[in-house]
Amino acid sequence: MKTSLGPKPIAYPTPVYIVGTYDAAHKPNVMAVAWGGICCSKPPCVAVSVRAATYTYGNLKERKAFTVSMPSLDHVREADYFGIASGRDVDKFAVSGLTPVGSDVVDAPYVAEFPLVLECKVVHVAELGLHTMFVGEILDVKVEDACLDADGRPSGELLKPFCWTPIENQYYALGDKLGKGFSVGKALAP
Amino acid sequence: MKTSLGPKPIAYPTPVYIVGTYDAAHKPNVMAVAWGGICCSKPPCVAVSVRAATYTYGNLKERKAFTVSMPSLDHVREADYFGIASGRDVDKFAVSGLTPVGSDVVDAPYVAEFPLVLECKVVHVAELGLHTMFVGEILDVKVEDACLDADGRPSGELLKPFCWTPIENQYYALGDKLGKGFSVGKALAP
Repeated sequence: MKTSLGPKPIAYPTPVYIVGTYDAAHKPNVMAVAWGGICCSKPPCVAVSVRAATYTYGNLKERKAFTVSMPSLDHVREADYFGIASGRDVDKFAVSGLTPVGSDVVDAPYVAEFPLVLECKVVHVAELGLHTMFVGEILDVKVEDACLDADGRPSGELLKPFCWTPIENQYYALGDKLGKGFSVGKALAP
Repeated sequence: MKTSLGPKPIAYPTPVYIVGTYDAAHKPNVMAVAWGGICCSKPPCVAVSVRAATYTYGNLKERKAFTVSMPSLDHVREADYFGIASGRDVDKFAVSGLTPVGSDVVDAPYVAEFPLVLECKVVHVAELGLHTMFVGEILDVKVEDACLDADGRPSGELLKPFCWTPIENQYYALGDKLGKGFSVGKALAP
């Protein structure tokens, strides 16, 4: 039996994306975003949604570029802080002690200490309501060498990403492996 | 030290969304989607991206409505199957033995056995390339009673959702709790 909760933004889990932008004075800023996801394979694109009230919104409108740095569970505290403070008031890199690196392909900074980075130029903007969705074409992906497996591919076990759950408001690590995609379901294919 | 992987659609983790639609003959169909995410809080919206070649694409264009059913880890095999087979060729509900339920708020079916369901009308479409992004306004959320905590809120531990990782192509359960959002980062706030 299901209970109706009404119209709410709920999905389990959501990602923890750290969106990096420069402001007008070229000050690097980062913001934690749970409303986002990959949205196209070719060209590869990722969507991130931010409120117009955020400092990141103005930067995205101005620079038309951003990065997404994905933290490992070693940096839950810093990632959460990036969703609490505003770049309008503080230098979040300075406060957190993490290191901004200027992307070599787009006009935006990423977090040196975070193992997986997408570098994006804005190709589509949708004003949806409280949030505006910015779709970025991913021009490059950079991964920490220590997080690549023997075949040179990103590994969930080595990247140690984490996710978040709305309403419950909880960060979770990845847990047990449950099987390979496009594989475990073949048992059902007629 | 980071290695450049070039432009690729990589994010860790991605969701496992089961997108439910009706075809022209009112046959219920479901498709597994990893490219998606919540994209607005007010009105609550969720984005899902599908290729034009899929059966779901035609249904979305025609009906302008869909559901997102989120499976628990009891149904990894069925969810994976929903990403392998096409509704053009088979009745995926019949093959999997799962039960279609017609939404009472939108013109689309959801999966009775899956614990968390979003019911959506299409409000924005973006042709991004290989994938088309459909943004749905969430008109209702339905949750299995057994997955609500003592305060009537969805619980990750009870919902037991799972996620997927691209390239690695692996399903993962949720793991350890790492702390509360908008909380663990306060230690850094000046």
